[in-house]
Amino acid sequence: MSEKRKKRDKPDNKRTIDPAALEILERNDGKVETAYDRYVKMQPQCNFGRTGICCRICLQGPCRITRRASKGVCGAHGYTIVARNLIRAINGGAGAHADHGRHLIYTLTEMIQGKAPDYKIEDPDKLRRVAQLIGLSVEGKEERDLLEEVLNAAVSDFTKLNDEPLHWLEGTVTPGRMEKFADCNIHPRSVHTAISETMGQTHMGVDSDPVNLVFQGLKTSLADFAAEHIATDLSDILFGTPRPVTSEANFGVIDPEMVNIALHGHNPLLSEMIVRAAREMRPEAEAVGARGVKCMGICCTGNEVLMRQGIPLLTNFLSQELPIMTGAIDAMVVDVQCIMPGVRAVAECYHTRIITTMSHSKIPGAHHVEFTEDRAMEKAREIIHLAIEGYKERLPDRIDIPKLKHTVTAGFSVEAMLDLFAAVNPDNPIKVLTDAIDSGQLRGVVLLCGCNNLRVMHDHSCTTVIKGLAENNVLMVATGCMAGTAAKLGLMNAGAVEEYAGDGLKSFIHMLNEANADKLNNRLPLIFHMGSCVDNSRAYDLNTLMANQWGVDTPKVPYAASAPEAMSEKAVAIGSWCVTLGMPTHVGVTPEITGSALVDGIALQIAHDVYGGYFIWEEDPEKSVEVLLAALDERTWKMRVHRQAQEKYETETISAGW
Amino acid sequence: MSEKRKKRDKPDNKRTIDPAALEILERNDGKVETAYDRYVKMQPQCNFGRTGICCRICLQGPCRITRRASKGVCGAHGYTIVARNLIRAINGGAGAHADHGRHLIYTLTEMIQGKAPDYKIEDPDKLRRVAQLIGLSVEGKEERDLLEEVLNAAVSDFTKLNDEPLHWLEGTVTPGRMEKFADCNIHPRSVHTAISETMGQTHMGVDSDPVNLVFQGLKTSLADFAAEHIATDLSDILFGTPRPVTSEANFGVIDPEMVNIALHGHNPLLSEMIVRAAREMRPEAEAVGARGVKCMGICCTGNEVLMRQGIPLLTNFLSQELPIMTGAIDAMVVDVQCIMPGVRAVAECYHTRIITTMSHSKIPGAHHVEFTEDRAMEKAREIIHLAIEGYKERLPDRIDIPKLKHTVTAGFSVEAMLDLFAAVNPDNPIKVLTDAIDSGQLRGVVLLCGCNNLRVMHDHSCTTVIKGLAENNVLMVATGCMAGTAAKLGLMNAGAVEEYAGDGLKSFIHMLNEANADKLNNRLPLIFHMGSCVDNSRAYDLNTLMANQWGVDTPKVPYAASAPEAMSEKAVAIGSWCVTLGMPTHVGVTPEITGSALVDGIALQIAHDVYGGYFIWEEDPEKSVEVLLAALDERTWKMRVHRQAQEKYETETISAGW
Repeated sequence: MSEKRKKRDKPDNKRTIDPAALEILERNDGKVETAYDRYVKMQPQCNFGRTGICCRICLQGPCRITRRASKGVCGAHGYTIVARNLIRAINGGAGAHADHGRHLIYTLTEMIQGKAPDYKIEDPDKLRRVAQLIGLSVEGKEERDLLEEVLNAAVSDFTKLNDEPLHWLEGTVTPGRMEKFADCNIHPRSVHTAISETMGQTHMGVDSDPVNLVFQGLKTSLADFAAEHIATDLSDILFGTPRPVTSEANFGVIDPEMVNIALHGHNPLLSEMIVRAAREMRPEAEAVGARGVKCMGICCTGNEVLMRQGIPLLTNFLSQELPIMTGAIDAMVVDVQCIMPGVRAVAECYHTRIITTMSHSKIPGAHHVEFTEDRAMEKAREIIHLAIEGYKERLPDRIDIPKLKHTVTAGFSVEAMLDLFAAVNPDNPIKVLTDAIDSGQLRGVVLLCGCNNLRVMHDHSCTTVIKGLAENNVLMVATGCMAGTAAKLGLMNAGAVEEYAGDGLKSFIHMLNEANADKLNNRLPLIFHMGSCVDNSRAYDLNTLMANQWGVDTPKVPYAASAPEAMSEKAVAIGSWCVTLGMPTHVGVTPEITGSALVDGIALQIAHDVYGGYFIWEEDPEKSVEVLLAALDERTWKMRVHRQAQEKYETETISAGW
Repeated sequence: MSEKRKKRDKPDNKRTIDPAALEILERNDGKVETAYDRYVKMQPQCNFGRTGICCRICLQGPCRITRRASKGVCGAHGYTIVARNLIRAINGGAGAHADHGRHLIYTLTEMIQGKAPDYKIEDPDKLRRVAQLIGLSVEGKEERDLLEEVLNAAVSDFTKLNDEPLHWLEGTVTPGRMEKFADCNIHPRSVHTAISETMGQTHMGVDSDPVNLVFQGLKTSLADFAAEHIATDLSDILFGTPRPVTSEANFGVIDPEMVNIALHGHNPLLSEMIVRAAREMRPEAEAVGARGVKCMGICCTGNEVLMRQGIPLLTNFLSQELPIMTGAIDAMVVDVQCIMPGVRAVAECYHTRIITTMSHSKIPGAHHVEFTEDRAMEKAREIIHLAIEGYKERLPDRIDIPKLKHTVTAGFSVEAMLDLFAAVNPDNPIKVLTDAIDSGQLRGVVLLCGCNNLRVMHDHSCTTVIKGLAENNVLMVATGCMAGTAAKLGLMNAGAVEEYAGDGLKSFIHMLNEANADKLNNRLPLIFHMGSCVDNSRAYDLNTLMANQWGVDTPKVPYAASAPEAMSEKAVAIGSWCVTLGMPTHVGVTPEITGSALVDGIALQIAHDVYGGYFIWEEDPEKSVEVLLAALDERTWKMRVHRQAQEKYETETISAGW
């Protein structure tokens, strides 16, 4: 075992660089078990599973590929096993995002049927933009009718069996990408059909061709993209398109004098209602001696309510158990995805109510208040009532809240970004960004996305990548728990621009600040928070706009994705569509793929040859900065060379090939 | 380790009791590697995977539950991990059956659009029966219009998002079952929606409640049932409803003087065309010195063409590589499911062409002739041409064909069974069966189903169960590879009745023989072959008919399922709906569930309390007979007691509760 490997795998339950999280962990000293402890206890982990060469798809298994047993009992090679496991992971991610999108479809459908009285169209402009995006005419249509048409299109994209293009692909990606999907036969029939197909294709004794399997996985990742985009668009219609908003992040946002509610999970449908109910129910809180009800967010529900309501962000995925250990969280309300069942066991040592809210996402022993759209506010009030009950049972001597908190400016939807650019160039806002890259002021754009993962030091990889890219004049957008890292560690505010940005990036952000001075309450941050992980579709829309501005396909755009601490199947799905949609995609935790050099090669190299995007596995965050910069530089260099050739030889276009 | 366990796990690559398979394996003596050898090389297998307590759902894993690490990194208990793995397996099975049903929907849709000229409605009576089954009026409708309505209903059952009942559940199960599904909230919205939901619900950090997870799994198993039923019904419409047919089975059916084609997989869409083309292309075969083209079946494609075309059955799942080793198979044509990639490596040592035919089911290195419905016969001819080319390259000194073959009588659709009964009781055919159970002539009905699995001696468990049940007067129906075992080992013919049936079963079958003497070409077999594994829906329809005849719900019917050698995820899905639909369900290879006593208990006991059906894990085939008999006897005893009580106290119904 290499020294580096030994060091990496060394048990250490202080695997975070977040000072507030460390404060809690050190005080606790292992008394209450958290993920940080469980990860240590779980060492060593099985390397067959880790490298993807363990097959459990039939009851003759598990089959593990070794030198002696070089094929599974059925004769499956390692490459088949790795590919099947990989695309089932993509399928898990797509299933999660499908669940999210479907829930919004159900809610909006009930709303227009008059069965969800607490919801209304918050953003009719967005409704019209979405309708236009998917090719509907909007002229003279009533809001309700237009929404019905949009929902019909969404249902079709989720369910249909035929080969017609998906509205949410055709309307969102470049024509070049659509051609590529057709060439490679990876255009999904629909979200659900692709997911079902993938389960069937990976069944025992069906596909054993790794390329064919991976292509089906990419098809499913495009279904995932469509589901995400639908979820984001419908959320904006329902709750408003995010605009810049300033708030605070990290444990210091907990106010011991308030009834404190942590909102955790992914779906804004309930959390938006809770935020509203919390404001209404201040008198009830005051009646038990509190100053009011304070909502705070964790994970992507946190991102949702931060960007739309300015609700403070408590923390991100990995440290989700720790707020309970401040002794001052009266209820943690969870919906779906990335909720550690461990929160329930931690809460048993405190007064905190863990409240599950979705029928398909329960935790044994937790309170369950089943959320239904027809009685959304009623349910929200019931939940806040439980929190107030919790407040009364606090143990004052166990309250100990780290003081650390940082200012965060979030809410940068694509619309908000274009507004910023429009202040500089009203006729062609996106040209502000492409010009800055053309001139060398910016070296490109990177999307920071993904989760946390205890295989790498919590928040460390992300912050290292952010600082490295900032110094090198890369414009960064962020989503999900990487946005969370930036927010809670003080990298998502105007101060960080001054501290970390290189001259080019600094001057670019300053230019936007100045042009938008009359509109902005706060100066712009170092990194632009585009939302929760489902909102990676927003980040990709920016890529499409840039490609169209340059008149090229996305594989020419100096725009990369980086998931320094990826953990979930959703991240695998998102990474896969990033690659399929033409992006260099860095992942800081090598996925379960290295057991097959062939499948690994598909991800790293063949993907590039076919789709223009490709994966980069790099666990060292310093080196990650280098590879990301190299990926951007290669593309800006190629664009410059092509442009020079174009000028010199008067060729018509630079978009030959991609 | 117990002596029994040691014995079971002892490496031995002669793990079959099929004399013909043994002959090939002994002659080969490990020179050409087969699944029998690979299983030995794979020992010992990982017990974490084997018992379901290895979680690879996120990139922080694998997490394996031990005394030290009693929860996953996220805090997931063993019960959550086991339940998630289990229901993802059900989902794999449902995905496979969805693929099968969807392919038939596509083909029939193309047919009525005039795009699949080689297909036609073979069985218009079945079309009308299916239409009536799902509640359509058939009066005065054109065939084409009626088929379109049936297809629309099938598409709806596959895709819809709302809570309306599925046509293929409402029309096929008892009203009591529909109520049960509503009570437990396990009625699927549609096949694809259930599959997608299950992926989402099992994503990291969503559901950690094992009961909730298992119930979602059962929901998905009902989706699987609907998909299977649709596949079977559409196949019958297209190719005809099976009627009794007599043929032969086992390696002795290979004729060295013919061009020999093995048809392997599950879907009749191509194999039916190949059988037709084989008859047409005799002259081409004669031109190269063969006497003609002979098709033979393997696995469930084998069952499909056996029951509809009388094509001989070569062998079942586990021995699928061995026909190639006779040196006389010129092509093996595969479609989907349960095709060992190993066939390709074996074929490299011979002249045999392995021909894959489906775009989503390829094997690297195999010939690929992509089957499309619009050119079905053309593709079939191309495949036979490849086989004829193969014939020319045979190595005469390597041809060595075991002589063993047995007569088999198959083709017992529910319609065919009812026809047999109608000769005894034309007014109420099913009463012939229920009366025989009421009188004690039969002890009940058992469905033999499922695959082969090297964890238990190939064909041994199945034959032991068959002989034990026959002796004890249980009427047996069989599907899939268990039907294959019975066929190739001489248990599926009239001779076996005389040899193995107890007096009651013998007299029952004799009665049917006599009543149907004018219609039957051959006397009836010991076991009634109902089709491929997708046709388990047929076997369940018999259960519904019996329940309705007795006026009870299915949990009162002495009808059990037994999968003595289960292997695939499809088997997990089928077993799950058998339980949900009220059947005692014996599985002879314990699935990956025993790592959680709680989930194991749900399968074995709580399922019984809630659904009336339940699982029985029993790997010892002798004991399996005992537990199956006990399960049947408990139900007949209860029915008798209830009936006596009813007569004594003049109560109205025996169907209170179940």
